[in-house]
Amino acid sequence: MLSKQESIDLRGKLIGESCQLFFRKNPLKIVRANAQYMYDEKDDAYLDCINNVAHVGHCHPAVVKAGCDQMSVLNTNNRFLHDNILLCAQKILSTLPENLSVCYFVNSGSEANDLALRLAQIHTGNKDVIALEHAYHGHLTSLIDISHYKFDLPGGVGRKDHVHVAPIPDTYRGKHRDSNKSEEELGSMYAEEVRAICNKIQEKGKGVCAFIAESLISCGGQVIPPNQYFNEVYDAVRASGGVCIADEVQVGFGRIGKHWWAFQQYDVYPDIVTMGKPMGNGHPVACVVTTKEISESFNKTGVEYFNTYGGNPVSCAIANAVFDTIETENLRENAVVVGEYLLDNCQILSRKHKVIGDVRGVGLFVGIDLVKDRETREPNPKCAKFVHQRMREEHILITIDGPHSNIIKFKPPMVFTKENVDAVMSTLDRVFKEYREKSELFEVNTTRMPGYVTDGKSTKEHRPIKALLERSNIKSI
Amino acid sequence: MLSKQESIDLRGKLIGESCQLFFRKNPLKIVRANAQYMYDEKDDAYLDCINNVAHVGHCHPAVVKAGCDQMSVLNTNNRFLHDNILLCAQKILSTLPENLSVCYFVNSGSEANDLALRLAQIHTGNKDVIALEHAYHGHLTSLIDISHYKFDLPGGVGRKDHVHVAPIPDTYRGKHRDSNKSEEELGSMYAEEVRAICNKIQEKGKGVCAFIAESLISCGGQVIPPNQYFNEVYDAVRASGGVCIADEVQVGFGRIGKHWWAFQQYDVYPDIVTMGKPMGNGHPVACVVTTKEISESFNKTGVEYFNTYGGNPVSCAIANAVFDTIETENLRENAVVVGEYLLDNCQILSRKHKVIGDVRGVGLFVGIDLVKDRETREPNPKCAKFVHQRMREEHILITIDGPHSNIIKFKPPMVFTKENVDAVMSTLDRVFKEYREKSELFEVNTTRMPGYVTDGKSTKEHRPIKALLERSNIKSI
Repeated sequence: MLSKQESIDLRGKLIGESCQLFFRKNPLKIVRANAQYMYDEKDDAYLDCINNVAHVGHCHPAVVKAGCDQMSVLNTNNRFLHDNILLCAQKILSTLPENLSVCYFVNSGSEANDLALRLAQIHTGNKDVIALEHAYHGHLTSLIDISHYKFDLPGGVGRKDHVHVAPIPDTYRGKHRDSNKSEEELGSMYAEEVRAICNKIQEKGKGVCAFIAESLISCGGQVIPPNQYFNEVYDAVRASGGVCIADEVQVGFGRIGKHWWAFQQYDVYPDIVTMGKPMGNGHPVACVVTTKEISESFNKTGVEYFNTYGGNPVSCAIANAVFDTIETENLRENAVVVGEYLLDNCQILSRKHKVIGDVRGVGLFVGIDLVKDRETREPNPKCAKFVHQRMREEHILITIDGPHSNIIKFKPPMVFTKENVDAVMSTLDRVFKEYREKSELFEVNTTRMPGYVTDGKSTKEHRPIKALLERSNIKSI
Repeated sequence: MLSKQESIDLRGKLIGESCQLFFRKNPLKIVRANAQYMYDEKDDAYLDCINNVAHVGHCHPAVVKAGCDQMSVLNTNNRFLHDNILLCAQKILSTLPENLSVCYFVNSGSEANDLALRLAQIHTGNKDVIALEHAYHGHLTSLIDISHYKFDLPGGVGRKDHVHVAPIPDTYRGKHRDSNKSEEELGSMYAEEVRAICNKIQEKGKGVCAFIAESLISCGGQVIPPNQYFNEVYDAVRASGGVCIADEVQVGFGRIGKHWWAFQQYDVYPDIVTMGKPMGNGHPVACVVTTKEISESFNKTGVEYFNTYGGNPVSCAIANAVFDTIETENLRENAVVVGEYLLDNCQILSRKHKVIGDVRGVGLFVGIDLVKDRETREPNPKCAKFVHQRMREEHILITIDGPHSNIIKFKPPMVFTKENVDAVMSTLDRVFKEYREKSELFEVNTTRMPGYVTDGKSTKEHRPIKALLERSNIKSI
């Protein structure tokens, strides 16, 4: 094995510097992993709160076995018939509304989103795409073009004419956040923004191609879109000739617990769903699911589609094992129970640490929004950076995201336990305290957390923080 | 296991109809494979002459073991340090010219070509891309745009303004094919076409972004570009501000035998090389290699690159095992010896069957060009279709490609043997005879095969057919 320093030196020399590396100044060398734990070159364990790709746990034996068994028998392209791709398609479709009935297998969430856009263009004959502020949909050229998170960076490619950016439906720090409004009212207000874009496109004599959004917004800062939002957006987009794409690459496969797919909590019916990351528990496999009509539009072009590895027997054996493991180990139920416990505890923590402006999430998709001031909600990236670094020193891996780099993200493997939550919370508590003492800028106070989540008007289960506040009667410290 | 009919029915229902399926009317159900053999649901064996992805042989035990061993230990993204990606980069770079020194790992040849174009755009600040007639570079939007093979189909998206199509440098049936010219002269004539495009772009006040071509042209019809072509093209492109991309996705990893990469036989130095398919022997892994300068241009944008699975420990363990196997089993030497034997035998066959217009290839990349008439070189897709179907009935898998669907393609696993060649040739001989009898259109004659390959002016080893003719003294039958 290379020494850590040799690894650092070689990486600097051989691998494109643009390639992301966690803790660049002192990166982690991880040599093995199991379930929700990763181990470095000294065999020191780290609690993994971030690898949503290792969905059913790192190196899950059932998934490894399925992959290995198939690798030794056959791994070729799907220009030949094979059972695995069909069983995988059946499993996927069994979790989706009936109208979503046709699968295309690919290698990555990026390939899936690229194909989704291509299908939308072919089906609608339109080009104009509406995506969200701070959205990220993948690393390919066509996706960088629609990903505000990337194209709007100082060195980014800028916005192309066919791309339209709608405000992120973030009721905590977005454009519309009036705490006197209900969640549904705010949802409508954000949807109205999309409708206005649709109108503008139509005024130019064009139609909409697609609206694409993650069902829960990850890189944008663990944002849970309000009720009513997608419902009205989908109506507006369809009325303008467009199709609706739900990007479930990061948030699908039961992460939210109650449903297989995050869009399902909103009672909407996308025309195209893309899925990836957790699908192969680390193995490159992804999928686009769409309607018979859209699939037929593609077929009518006469242009065949071929993806060398997409849906090969090994990829599908692995995806099938991931599905089975989610079911046999009741991981969706675990996401509900542990996710709620995580939210509860973040909420408890927020009573102690004024630097926590908001806590939000559903299932094992949770964010803590750090602020300098609860009233102004000014983001606190400095604290986030401190926490990120200190948690790593405490052998707990979290990430920081959002446009202001102030959101602590939790998206752990689905085998995460209450004990893991306890460990994270007690450490976070200590680290926040350190930060407060270090910065000498914070005072404990009992100011009510701002935001509509406490306005008593929302009742949807997908905002557990609401339920939590009602249930817990936690007194401010 | 599903019955074959159930598989057909389910596939029709669940998987996008646009997805390619071999022998659509009666597809093959393949359930296992080993080395150069594939087995159907009845355990009937098929000799595999087409799966270049299963490079070191289907289910090679060393590759399977490397993948399985790593899968059970760690499979996570490369935001953590890991040895496998570094060892893989070292291996790749050791096979390339020194100027190519930085790697980006991705999941597929398509992802690689997309990133290559993005790097070229960022580095040059230009947009105009020159690609070849009938070229195919991948299934992503950005690649369909530059792939004449796809965008120019009746239902295709058409040519975008930034895309320029240069004539395919096919000296047998391309624009320039004067048999009185030397290979080098024809190479220059084809290069002149690219120079003219560069000039046109510059006349509009713009610069060239990139010239992209496969080093041997696969889907375009197993075409071996003539000497001098790439040398002059690269000069012209660079003089116009562009970079040169060698697409080695289908033809790299030692397939040509003498060199690791097909461009190396031309003594040119690309700025970017993309590699994929054979790299993982079926596992999704691919790579972009470029210069320090281009990599630095990307880094200077400040936009980070992240590819969820690209270069993960399993993908790289597998790629490393593929490299090792090529070396330990002398598969490049095998490609030279068996490839030459294959070409020799195709040549012998051509003396018997007038329907063979041209035989060309290098290493285990070989094509047989079928014609209705040797003088006019009119393509014969009907014969190709017949041969394709009959060979399948004889349990030998070949493919047909080229813009006229008249080229028999050989790109077998690198473990292909002389005995396999014998089996293919005797069967082909029989099948061609059947076709002749069936069509009653052909007569045996001894007309000299047309084309510059027999003009005695070319001496380069990468056109073994030339050497063959000199060496074999095969008499026409």
